Amino acid sequence: MSDTDGDDDGFFTSRWVQRPAHVTVARDGALPAGFRAAGVAAGIKPSGGLDVGLLVCDRPDAVSAARFTDSGVLAAPVIVTKERANLGAIRAIVANSGNANAATGRPGLDEAARIQGAGAMASGVPAEQVAVASTGVIGVQLDGQAVVKGLLAANGELTTRREGVDAFADAIKTTDVIDKHVALDVELPSGRVRLSAQCKGAGMISPRFATMLCFVQTDAALAPETADLLLGVCVKRSFDRCTVDGQLSTNDTAILIASGASGVVVEPESEDELRFGEALDALLRQLAVLMVRDGEGAARVGRVIVHGGHPQSVEAAARAVANSPLVKTALNGGDPNWGRIAQAVGSALTGTAPLALDISIEGIRVCSGGMALPVDADRLVAAVAREEVEYEVVLPGEGADTEVFFSDLGHGYVTVNAEYTT
Amino acid sequence: MSDTDGDDDGFFTSRWVQRPAHVTVARDGALPAGFRAAGVAAGIKPSGGLDVGLLVCDRPDAVSAARFTDSGVLAAPVIVTKERANLGAIRAIVANSGNANAATGRPGLDEAARIQGAGAMASGVPAEQVAVASTGVIGVQLDGQAVVKGLLAANGELTTRREGVDAFADAIKTTDVIDKHVALDVELPSGRVRLSAQCKGAGMISPRFATMLCFVQTDAALAPETADLLLGVCVKRSFDRCTVDGQLSTNDTAILIASGASGVVVEPESEDELRFGEALDALLRQLAVLMVRDGEGAARVGRVIVHGGHPQSVEAAARAVANSPLVKTALNGGDPNWGRIAQAVGSALTGTAPLALDISIEGIRVCSGGMALPVDADRLVAAVAREEVEYEVVLPGEGADTEVFFSDLGHGYVTVNAEYTT
Repeated sequence: MSDTDGDDDGFFTSRWVQRPAHVTVARDGALPAGFRAAGVAAGIKPSGGLDVGLLVCDRPDAVSAARFTDSGVLAAPVIVTKERANLGAIRAIVANSGNANAATGRPGLDEAARIQGAGAMASGVPAEQVAVASTGVIGVQLDGQAVVKGLLAANGELTTRREGVDAFADAIKTTDVIDKHVALDVELPSGRVRLSAQCKGAGMISPRFATMLCFVQTDAALAPETADLLLGVCVKRSFDRCTVDGQLSTNDTAILIASGASGVVVEPESEDELRFGEALDALLRQLAVLMVRDGEGAARVGRVIVHGGHPQSVEAAARAVANSPLVKTALNGGDPNWGRIAQAVGSALTGTAPLALDISIEGIRVCSGGMALPVDADRLVAAVAREEVEYEVVLPGEGADTEVFFSDLGHGYVTVNAEYTT
Repeated sequence: MSDTDGDDDGFFTSRWVQRPAHVTVARDGALPAGFRAAGVAAGIKPSGGLDVGLLVCDRPDAVSAARFTDSGVLAAPVIVTKERANLGAIRAIVANSGNANAATGRPGLDEAARIQGAGAMASGVPAEQVAVASTGVIGVQLDGQAVVKGLLAANGELTTRREGVDAFADAIKTTDVIDKHVALDVELPSGRVRLSAQCKGAGMISPRFATMLCFVQTDAALAPETADLLLGVCVKRSFDRCTVDGQLSTNDTAILIASGASGVVVEPESEDELRFGEALDALLRQLAVLMVRDGEGAARVGRVIVHGGHPQSVEAAARAVANSPLVKTALNGGDPNWGRIAQAVGSALTGTAPLALDISIEGIRVCSGGMALPVDADRLVAAVAREEVEYEVVLPGEGADTEVFFSDLGHGYVTVNAEYTT
C-alpha cells in the first residue's frame, strides 16, 4: 500500500497553483530520509507554547542553499548565519519564535552566536553548519539561556516521524493560524524522492521576498549550485510575489537542505532537475498563497496580474495595487470598487497621464482605455465575493508581465496588530 | 469691537503648528473682500447632502496659482482645468462631491468641460477663468446636467458671508468629519488682509501632496509669481508632508486666488510677503494636520521626524514609517512597540545593514546605534497614549531632515473603506 494518495490532500488548495502530476502529498507526513526534527516549549513565548525548534540532517555530505531578507535592519540570527555559517553545507537549524532578536545590538549577536554553538552541541554537527533563525517581537533582548535549555530538551526528542516535524513547525509560529508544512513525494525519472517544508509567516510580509521563515528538506542528492539555483528561482516566484502588509522583515530566512539519503542524484540540467524544480516551485507557491491567506486577520486572497508596459512599470503597478489599503479593504468588504485599482496604478505611474489602462476583475472587463465600461453589477459583486479574487491590469505597451498575491485588510488585521504588544 | 480675537479659536489646535502672532481667527467667518460662495444639493450624493459648490471672485484683475496631483490616472476636471483654464487668473471654482469624474474617458472630459461652461455662465466670468474640481467615487460617469442645475441654484445664493462659505465647504466634503475651513485676519506691515481656506480630505491621502481639494482666498494683492511661489512652498511643507493611507489621488487640487480688494499690495521680497507667507504656511500646515486627524477612522496623529543620512534616505525612511500598517496599528492601539519603526526604516533602506539608527518616542530614547535601550515602560506607554505622538529617527550621517504627519490605522478605517461602495 502506498503512503501517498492521488488527490491534493488539503495542501494544493489554491486555483492559482497546479499540483504537478508527479507530485503527491505524503500521508505519513514524515521528513525525508536523513532528517530529524523536534520542537519544545522553552519559555520564550509568554503563552508557554512551543517556541524552540531543532532540525538536523545526519548526512555529513548534505548540501544547502539559503536566502535572507535585505532589510537595512538585520536581525542578529541573520547576521550570524550569513557570517558564521557555511551556507552551502548547513546541516542543522535552530529556530525560535516569540522574540526576533532584532535591534538588539552586540548583546543580541552574542546570544545568537551562543545559540549557534549550543545548536552544534545538541545536533552533533560543527557550528559552522548550524543556521540560527528567530521570529517574534523586535527590540527586546532574547533570553539565549532559555533557548540553550530548550535545545538540550529538543535533542532527546529528535525524530524523522511526523511528530517531530509537527512540533518543529509549531515552534516557529507566531501569529500563524493556518498550518504551513507538508511532506511531498516526488517521482523523478531516476526515482522517488521526498520533499518537505515548514514555513511561518502571517504579518510583516512583503516586498522582495516575504517576511517569513521557510525550511525545506529533501533526500534527493543535489549539487550545491543546483540547490542554490532552484531555491533562488523558486523564492522569486513565490515568497517574492506575495504581500500581506507591504512590510519587509528583519528576519526573513529560507534554507533548503538536501541530504542525498535517497540515493537519487539530481544532475544539473537533467530531466530530474526539471521535475524536481517543478515540485519545489509548486510547493513554495502554495506556501506563499497560504501565507497570504493566513495574513493577519485576512478573509480573502487577491491576485493582481499586470501586463504590458515595461518591467519597472508592471512591478510598480502590481505592488501599488497589492499594497493599497483602499484596494485591500474593498477586497475585504466584497466591494467591486475598481476605481481604487485605477487610482493605485495611477499613483505608481506618476506623470504618465492620460494612461489608457484596461482593468478586469475575474475576467469581467470594467475599464477599457482608461474609461469605465457598463457592467452587470450583480455579476461583478458575485465575482468579488469569492475566496480568491483575480484582478488584471493591462498597461499600454508590450513585453512585461508580473503577478502579486495579496491579502485583504479587515478588522482582524487591526485587532491582531493594535493589540500585539511588546 | 474687533471681529477677531487673540486666541486660537479652535483652529490652531496642533502642538506642531504655531499660530503666528500677527494672525488671528476671524470670528465672523466671512470670505475676504471680493469673494462670494455658495453650496447646494444637486443630487450627486445619494445622501441628498450638499454636493455642488461655487466660489466666485468679482475682481477682474484677480491673480491665482494652482497645484495638482501628478497621478498617472488624472480625473477629467484636473485635465480640463490644467488644459483649458488660465491658471494664473482663475476667478471661479466649481466643485462637486459624490463623484470624482475619474476613469470616465472622453464622456467624462465632455462633462467636465460642460460644467466649466456652466460655471462661467453662473458666475459671469469667462470660461478660461473657471476651475473645475470633483471628489468622490472613481469610475462612474458624472451626471453633468445635475451639476449644471445645481450651479443655477447656487448662483442665486452667492454671498460673502459665513453662510455661503460654510455651504461651499460642506459641498466639497466626502467622508470628512472634521470641518476644515477657516477665515483668518493677517496684520501685514502695509495693512490688514483676510485669508480664508476650504479644504477636504480624509482618505486616499498621500505621497507628494495629499489627496484633497483646498481652495484659498485672500483680498491681498499678489503678483502672479508671488502667488505661485507661496502656494508651491506652502503646499510642499503641508499637504506634501502628510499621509492617511499612502494613496495618491486622481483629483488633488489646490488653488489660491488673490482678489486684491483690500488694497494692500504684497510686493515680492517685502516684509509683507514674508508675513503673508508665514500666515499661509501656518494655515496649510494646520489644515494638513486636520486632514490626518480626520483620516478615515483615525483616532491619533503621528509625526515622524528623520534626521541624518541624505535627502533620499530620510524621505524614504519617513514615508516607510508613516505608511507602515504595523506602525499605524501600534499608534492606534497605544502600543509602544518601536521595533516596528526599526523594521520600517530597515525596509526602506535595504542593503545598508548594520544600520546604527537611533529611535526616540516623545523624547524618550528607546534605541541607540541600532540597539534596544532599557526604558521606563510605564512612561513610554503613557507617552504613546496621547492624541499626537512624535517619533524621531536619527540615521548615521548628517545634512538632511524631514517630517511626515500620519494617521493611525484602526477599525474605523476598515469600517469606512470596506463599506464605501460604488
